Amino acid sequence: MASVLHLLLLSVCSLYCISSGHRHPLDPLSPSEISTIRSIIKSSSLLSPAPLGFHYVGLDEPDKHAVLSWKSDPASHPLPPRRAFVILRADGQTYELHIDLDNNSIASHRRRSGGSGHPMLNMDEQNAVLALPFKYAPFVDSVKKRGVELRDVVCSTLTMGWFGEEQDQRLVKMQCFVTGETVNLYMRPIEGITMVVDMETVEIVEYEDRVVIAMPTAAGTEYRASRQLPPYGPRGKPVVVTQPVGKGFTFEGNVVRWANWNFHVGFDSRVGLVITVAGVGNGKDDIHRSVLYRGYLSEVYVPYMDPSEEWYFKTYFDIGEYGFASTSFSLKAGIDCPHNAEYMDGYYANGDGSPVLLRNAICIFERYAGDVSWRHTETLIPGRIITESREEVSLVVRTVYTAGNYDYVLDWELKTSGSIKLSAGFTGVLEVRATDYNHVEEMIGEQHGTLLAPNTIGVFHDHFLTYHLDLDVDGPENSFVKANLRTVRAEGGTTPRKSYWTVVSETARTEADARIAHNEAPPGELLFVNPGVKTRLGNTVGYRLIRSGAAATALMSEEDYPQRRAEYTKKSLWVTPYRKSEKWPSGLYADMGHGEDNLAVWSMRNRSIENTDIVLWYTIGVHHVPSQEDFPLMPTLNMGFELRPYNFFEHNPVIGTQPFIKNTGLTR
Amino acid sequence: MASVLHLLLLSVCSLYCISSGHRHPLDPLSPSEISTIRSIIKSSSLLSPAPLGFHYVGLDEPDKHAVLSWKSDPASHPLPPRRAFVILRADGQTYELHIDLDNNSIASHRRRSGGSGHPMLNMDEQNAVLALPFKYAPFVDSVKKRGVELRDVVCSTLTMGWFGEEQDQRLVKMQCFVTGETVNLYMRPIEGITMVVDMETVEIVEYEDRVVIAMPTAAGTEYRASRQLPPYGPRGKPVVVTQPVGKGFTFEGNVVRWANWNFHVGFDSRVGLVITVAGVGNGKDDIHRSVLYRGYLSEVYVPYMDPSEEWYFKTYFDIGEYGFASTSFSLKAGIDCPHNAEYMDGYYANGDGSPVLLRNAICIFERYAGDVSWRHTETLIPGRIITESREEVSLVVRTVYTAGNYDYVLDWELKTSGSIKLSAGFTGVLEVRATDYNHVEEMIGEQHGTLLAPNTIGVFHDHFLTYHLDLDVDGPENSFVKANLRTVRAEGGTTPRKSYWTVVSETARTEADARIAHNEAPPGELLFVNPGVKTRLGNTVGYRLIRSGAAATALMSEEDYPQRRAEYTKKSLWVTPYRKSEKWPSGLYADMGHGEDNLAVWSMRNRSIENTDIVLWYTIGVHHVPSQEDFPLMPTLNMGFELRPYNFFEHNPVIGTQPFIKNTGLTR
Repeated sequence: MASVLHLLLLSVCSLYCISSGHRHPLDPLSPSEISTIRSIIKSSSLLSPAPLGFHYVGLDEPDKHAVLSWKSDPASHPLPPRRAFVILRADGQTYELHIDLDNNSIASHRRRSGGSGHPMLNMDEQNAVLALPFKYAPFVDSVKKRGVELRDVVCSTLTMGWFGEEQDQRLVKMQCFVTGETVNLYMRPIEGITMVVDMETVEIVEYEDRVVIAMPTAAGTEYRASRQLPPYGPRGKPVVVTQPVGKGFTFEGNVVRWANWNFHVGFDSRVGLVITVAGVGNGKDDIHRSVLYRGYLSEVYVPYMDPSEEWYFKTYFDIGEYGFASTSFSLKAGIDCPHNAEYMDGYYANGDGSPVLLRNAICIFERYAGDVSWRHTETLIPGRIITESREEVSLVVRTVYTAGNYDYVLDWELKTSGSIKLSAGFTGVLEVRATDYNHVEEMIGEQHGTLLAPNTIGVFHDHFLTYHLDLDVDGPENSFVKANLRTVRAEGGTTPRKSYWTVVSETARTEADARIAHNEAPPGELLFVNPGVKTRLGNTVGYRLIRSGAAATALMSEEDYPQRRAEYTKKSLWVTPYRKSEKWPSGLYADMGHGEDNLAVWSMRNRSIENTDIVLWYTIGVHHVPSQEDFPLMPTLNMGFELRPYNFFEHNPVIGTQPFIKNTGLTR
Repeated sequence: MASVLHLLLLSVCSLYCISSGHRHPLDPLSPSEISTIRSIIKSSSLLSPAPLGFHYVGLDEPDKHAVLSWKSDPASHPLPPRRAFVILRADGQTYELHIDLDNNSIASHRRRSGGSGHPMLNMDEQNAVLALPFKYAPFVDSVKKRGVELRDVVCSTLTMGWFGEEQDQRLVKMQCFVTGETVNLYMRPIEGITMVVDMETVEIVEYEDRVVIAMPTAAGTEYRASRQLPPYGPRGKPVVVTQPVGKGFTFEGNVVRWANWNFHVGFDSRVGLVITVAGVGNGKDDIHRSVLYRGYLSEVYVPYMDPSEEWYFKTYFDIGEYGFASTSFSLKAGIDCPHNAEYMDGYYANGDGSPVLLRNAICIFERYAGDVSWRHTETLIPGRIITESREEVSLVVRTVYTAGNYDYVLDWELKTSGSIKLSAGFTGVLEVRATDYNHVEEMIGEQHGTLLAPNTIGVFHDHFLTYHLDLDVDGPENSFVKANLRTVRAEGGTTPRKSYWTVVSETARTEADARIAHNEAPPGELLFVNPGVKTRLGNTVGYRLIRSGAAATALMSEEDYPQRRAEYTKKSLWVTPYRKSEKWPSGLYADMGHGEDNLAVWSMRNRSIENTDIVLWYTIGVHHVPSQEDFPLMPTLNMGFELRPYNFFEHNPVIGTQPFIKNTGLTR
């Protein structure tokens, strides 16, 4: 065992030996720290001697104040205390531990009592139950009854939500699929069965084979290139990107520097990529003014709209119930990210607490999509035509989150202009329902989806991707300002105009002022400003939020159980005061939770959000009515939003940028 | 003169000799056709012997039916009659002519009588008036009074809108600026002067120097690279795109073929790029099913929100008043478009009717921005991790429209998945007002803009970019369907759920059903379907509109004069039945027009739009509240929307597409 551990440490030395000289208080837990945490816990007498299951092991972030002090002057401030937060299950109980990594000890330890919900499932326990159906006679009979070979069947664990039950068991449902002739097993669900598994006792505790429904065939479901037959599908010709003078970004440990940006990249087992202490400058000096203290995709809520027995519970909180790390996989160079990308690894703890390497968890690359950062042609000066333009090269930090059937390509794009664009590419495979229908004309009565292929219904559902954005616009004390546009009636004959609009700004005083659903927002700008900092001209520095077209909000009724858990999806936008504990909008214990610890509940205290440290929660919302094009795998649908400087700079920060032409020898 | 003409014909032979074998009924007028039109008109006795001014010379598009018949079988259908439409001014009158290019004759000819407004200004007459102020003593005095050197002054013509005046003179206002130390003259307006010019008599007919306002200095206004001093602005490292196996698109005359797309590219002096007869297939055969009969950016309306004497009238219809061709310039290879772009030229008639070459008016390139067309990772099959993905290479057709100070980068992006993405990049220079203010604290009372620099206010304004999209989804007969999502209360205890949503579709019967402002749209899909065509499964084939986040609608009061002219900007979306004459949403005679011939007026007839040939008019709307980053030139702001197949294909058309890796020898 010692030699295995030794090898593991060697294999990660490439990353962590480089970074050892650049310890940062927000660095994610290293594999050796994860191993240390495991050892500390396993050797402690504080915990039950029963087998321990690790459900979350992550950095317990230092106090923001301590991080900012350290960052402002690392030489005269010590690194803040290094601690980890751990959630364990033992003996049917949940434990929360804080581990002191400076002293290799357990700093605090409590058994959770009261409160609904359970920690994220870990992969090991999910794997442990996957074999159960194959030894369960009623299921074997069900498979036989459907004329399917048992060896072609695979199963998955589905979180079962909460529908008013008062019991406290940690349960999942299982759904099984038929592979064999296709790897696209999601297109071949074994329908009509309900199967409930107790995660603690590892046994099937409920089983019902309610109805046999036709099994969709494998025809047309394969997506692997090797299984396609000519004539192949359409494509353009390859476009290859190269960087003749190298890449523009550097790493110091987990800190990335690029152009006028500077930020730290972290990785967390629950949410994946975490961008912290992002600052931007004017490119003329090494001063970076803060924009974002911490940002990550905090939850992905996907409720389905089929109330039937085998479907009603499908109301997934993908991040809170499964977590990013255990369902995501290495990015593939040249296909998930272009050839000029660099990769960063991630580490997380498995169910036993041991470190697992997620190689190439994150990629970083410079993007040039043929666009201009700015341009103008001027012709008013007699005899001259002046055209001036700059190429738009931006920096993309990407992860791909595979939430079972769906895949989300999650990009943070930073621009030299100071903009941050967040986008999500929706792709992957739909969750479909088997049906006896083969043609739309057979379908009578209310439908819950679109007929995508024979015997295959793409069920209606939503995607709500909620971003946590702890904006620190030129410092932590910020306000949220609605710069509303108001029509003014011109009166008194002073102008031939009868009307125009002007700006009437309103600073949100409390959380209630900042809850906005898409259709409720008056025309205008949504600004995050630092009321204590002005430009030389006297404008208040800020950033503006440019909202997405994909701003769907929840349509389910407010008293419905899933909606109580995801109450925050009633609005696209929330602003809360910064609280260290308010990280997960669906609550720390989202699995089977009752919704008493979610963003909307925190916000109902209606705290002050004026001139204080505030957090923006912004949701990209999509109502997905599938179409046949989504079968057997959907083309990427891109949705996003932008944070753009607004009187943050004294002027356009890229006006003085030199064109590439000068240095690359490229001809125009 | 003959030899000059000969040279001109030689110089365009590269394009037109290639295309001569590929005549298409929608080809734009060739330079020789423009010359022929001029000769026919000049030698005709029908027109006044007074000097003729050419204000529009364009293809008189053949009847749609004739084009479609020809296209379906060119061998057995003759090319439709080739005709041009011409608008002339002579002797203070407007003439409309149809020219028969098959017989080189004037097919019809009428003097316009009644109706408000005037044709587009032409460049020659604008140039002719630019010198007037310099010979006008009161203006020379005004310049002197401001301490400016006359030789540093340049002037421009500003359309003056309509504010209830009953006169019929063709007038413009002029505004002058100070260049000299800077080429960014728009940042140095000579404020406080009203100067009105009669375009017919070519004289200043009204002049007032109302107030002297401080002149902004040239400091910080230069954008040319050669004038920047170190330290320069921020940038990444160059990213160079190459295509190792060549480009994926071909031309046959003006018809472009790329992957599974096929479309015709035209050029019109009023609107620039016109995409017609665009069809898409599944890439497996040469069948292209129609999607779009004709699409173009039909108007750009930019009203400013300052009611003062020198600003109230700034309510530009950039396309209808000035036209695309006369204010736009050649695209610069490697900066406006990437190095792998191909270019197409455009031709238009000058004020004298002679052909003018706009070289590199349009560029076409394949784009790879590092994104995936689709992907999935599958891990449920024991012992296997399958990751499959395809690179997203799309085709971009681009023009850049320079409307005086502003520049718009206008992209049509076609995807192999069948999607069409339309986007507009807003950049260029703001129209600013000079002011005595140097600091925000000095500014008292209501403001009409943001202080961007000392003595410089960026005035509030809107941008409304209205696209004409004559969709022919799998044929001309289409319907517009609102697939509304409706919450259903689950009752009777059949499910633990209390609610879900379902789709309740509503076909728009008349135009009134299809007028939608952003905040009015219920959740759901907006579909353009062909009710007569079903997929094999029985779904109605269609395309869906994915709206933009930039969906601002007009805030001015309905009875205000500019708003009457731009009444259509009260909604983001209109659907009209196809009428050949309904091409310009601001009316054929937009300049100084009263709004009696605009999209909203046509639509008020409330015609049937069900199962007939329909046109979508979609407006990208932005309320622009400037910020200091917009000074002295704004970073590009990208806004767009998407038309995406919706049960148009039997399945994802790119599922069978082979990855590039196989053919390029690139390693993953």
